[in-house]
Amino acid sequence: MKRDFVFVGIIGFGTVGTGTVKILLSNSEIIRERTGLDIRLKRIADLDIERDRGVSLPEGVLTTRVDDILGDPEIDIVVELIGGIHPARDFILRAIRNRKHVVTANKALLATEGNEIFEEAEKNSVSIGFEASVAGGIPIIKVMQEGLVANRILNIYGIINGTSNYILTKMTEEDKDFSSALKEAQDLGYAEADPTFDIEGIDSAHKLTILSSLAYGIPLSYNQVYREGITRISTQDMVFARELGYKIKLLAITKAVDGEIEMRVHPTMIPQDYMIAKVDGVYNAIYVEGDAVGSTLYYGRGAGDMPTGSAVVADIVDIGKRIGVNRSKGEYSFLKPSNLRIRKMEDIESMYYFRFSAIDKPGVLSKISGILGDNNISIASVIQKGRRIGGAVPLVVLTHKAKESGVLRAIKTIDDLPIVTEPTHFIRVEGKEE
Amino acid sequence: MKRDFVFVGIIGFGTVGTGTVKILLSNSEIIRERTGLDIRLKRIADLDIERDRGVSLPEGVLTTRVDDILGDPEIDIVVELIGGIHPARDFILRAIRNRKHVVTANKALLATEGNEIFEEAEKNSVSIGFEASVAGGIPIIKVMQEGLVANRILNIYGIINGTSNYILTKMTEEDKDFSSALKEAQDLGYAEADPTFDIEGIDSAHKLTILSSLAYGIPLSYNQVYREGITRISTQDMVFARELGYKIKLLAITKAVDGEIEMRVHPTMIPQDYMIAKVDGVYNAIYVEGDAVGSTLYYGRGAGDMPTGSAVVADIVDIGKRIGVNRSKGEYSFLKPSNLRIRKMEDIESMYYFRFSAIDKPGVLSKISGILGDNNISIASVIQKGRRIGGAVPLVVLTHKAKESGVLRAIKTIDDLPIVTEPTHFIRVEGKEE
Repeated sequence: MKRDFVFVGIIGFGTVGTGTVKILLSNSEIIRERTGLDIRLKRIADLDIERDRGVSLPEGVLTTRVDDILGDPEIDIVVELIGGIHPARDFILRAIRNRKHVVTANKALLATEGNEIFEEAEKNSVSIGFEASVAGGIPIIKVMQEGLVANRILNIYGIINGTSNYILTKMTEEDKDFSSALKEAQDLGYAEADPTFDIEGIDSAHKLTILSSLAYGIPLSYNQVYREGITRISTQDMVFARELGYKIKLLAITKAVDGEIEMRVHPTMIPQDYMIAKVDGVYNAIYVEGDAVGSTLYYGRGAGDMPTGSAVVADIVDIGKRIGVNRSKGEYSFLKPSNLRIRKMEDIESMYYFRFSAIDKPGVLSKISGILGDNNISIASVIQKGRRIGGAVPLVVLTHKAKESGVLRAIKTIDDLPIVTEPTHFIRVEGKEE
Repeated sequence: MKRDFVFVGIIGFGTVGTGTVKILLSNSEIIRERTGLDIRLKRIADLDIERDRGVSLPEGVLTTRVDDILGDPEIDIVVELIGGIHPARDFILRAIRNRKHVVTANKALLATEGNEIFEEAEKNSVSIGFEASVAGGIPIIKVMQEGLVANRILNIYGIINGTSNYILTKMTEEDKDFSSALKEAQDLGYAEADPTFDIEGIDSAHKLTILSSLAYGIPLSYNQVYREGITRISTQDMVFARELGYKIKLLAITKAVDGEIEMRVHPTMIPQDYMIAKVDGVYNAIYVEGDAVGSTLYYGRGAGDMPTGSAVVADIVDIGKRIGVNRSKGEYSFLKPSNLRIRKMEDIESMYYFRFSAIDKPGVLSKISGILGDNNISIASVIQKGRRIGGAVPLVVLTHKAKESGVLRAIKTIDDLPIVTEPTHFIRVEGKEE
């Protein structure tokens, strides 16, 4: 039977845990007015229960023993907010096997071990709420699973890592180079001391894995995401991009092309007047195109205690409203076999921006464009300036749509030319073909 | 018990009806794969069942008799897509009393007669799906009811009428005047022959009524929305707005201020670099700020057969998944008494843009600014140019936050001055105060 209350236990009292608790303390009454559901926060487990988090809790809520939550028969929903693979995976699987619903913000875990977790949930007839795992407070999981349920998803382009978007925004707007923009992000607390996960696109790839499975029903396949970070973007590229009418963003892209699914994270040049190009600073946005709905975009804060807590609590409410109700079979459509294959990166097609470094002498452009032509790459526009007799000058080329394999081959050939002084730099380009 | 199929009857086979049917015909299989739900389109009622809509339906689906749907005990969900108040209201109430769930795109009906309809639904334990009533394919109703359920809503700013946004975009980008931009919108089919509903803000006010009730739990109160259309916006205002770094948009605004709710639709100047200022053409967007989630924005097509059909079908799926499941009591929180009052327009505070037309002689600025000061309106900046000795020149003033009542009083006094040649024009301004 349906109940009008739900007992919740939270594992992990860090940033997101604290945000979640703050929301539950301040907004439980308005949530009850809206939904009829009374959320009862029974236990919070953390190794450190002494630190002052600025919230006051009743006696007995805090515990250092995770079994006080996993083993409590009264607790309906276990909220896992410790992050990382171990011991989060173990805690979640134990919760599921104890027939508890789970809410988690753990994208790394879901992207890499999610298939097992969702299968186990299906087997035990419990739900996994994972709204907080992608794009913080933006309810993109709900949008994908419910709001756009009537659509075939044509493509998704996401700015889903606030740290790298902040760095790229600073590089664009203030002509900072990568290292000083990173330093600034670290000073402001937007980037970790070890920023690898963010700047190498790993975090974006985790989230993309989840979005792609929701969109196309494929198993969670983190290992098959192509991934390239933002560390090699130079201020020179920023200047050329601006001149050409583009912005450089770290995009997470998934789309269906000829029965195959592309999944890739890489710096991308986007026309300046596209909505997603206007998403600056630490903000996230996900552009989703559906066959019926057309272009849509969802924008907000992708991280932080309160925005992520907003998503965690929304999941608690969603599951709470369904407690005692038989779940529909197949809650997670990506657990069903799908005949869609993941496209190899070398098979994708894109437009490209090339920055060649070549000795400034006659015939260089003709030589390079000849090699591009040999590899079926056709040129859309060229910028060549700053003649320095005898020295190396940048030669910038924008291409029409071309195949990645041809591009890699062409670059290899070009970089072997004696007139070329440095490895060629390229960035994939999105937008309408001219 | 839960079922894995649902019988649907559609009343109204016009634009949105056709879009909905197209989606059901092409995407039912993927919807079944995703959700386990089989949507069975049993009947479509329309007075005209001869016209070719480009869809092929099995024998016996089309009918001219609405009772074939309302009186069919097998039909679970009645989809009302005829629009307008009569006979839509009657059909919906009959469907509810026959214990059928209802899906509707009818914002005019819900905004004006919605309280009765939702009460009747509550009484008969059926659901009303109204995702399609606001902002077409953007799942904003779901976002408000579920995605942001953990938040107190601080404010909502919506561009929720594509026609007027198209007209304002053309006026901004191509320096067209209002009438020729309207004419163009009509030629392209973006505006009706009688465009009143769109350009006078009536359609936006209908949608705002719904959003405001969802956000604040107040009864649907269309009659209390302050409303001002876009017909008086001049190209001169467009030029000044641009010069000052603003765009002019028709915004639907609702917010909670000191325990009162503001609900207003009017042209608004917004800083050019705000995300919502970048929403151009027929696109819609809704900016929602919550106390936990912070700033969020939802963007997409607010009208059209397929986008609106996307929302209709999402509602069918949502209700279909719950058929046979006891609904939670109080599905519509705005049916419960709320102690929030609706703020009188004269009590709101805003920044303002004034364009005074005054004879160009010494002392004019001092006279006008004196009257503003007397009414507690403090000036943020002034543009005065194009001296024409002895003639009338525009004097543009941006203010700090001021009270609407004081503004109206000041304008009345100023417009009575002999040096003022035309009634003063003003536009409310949003953004950070300088």
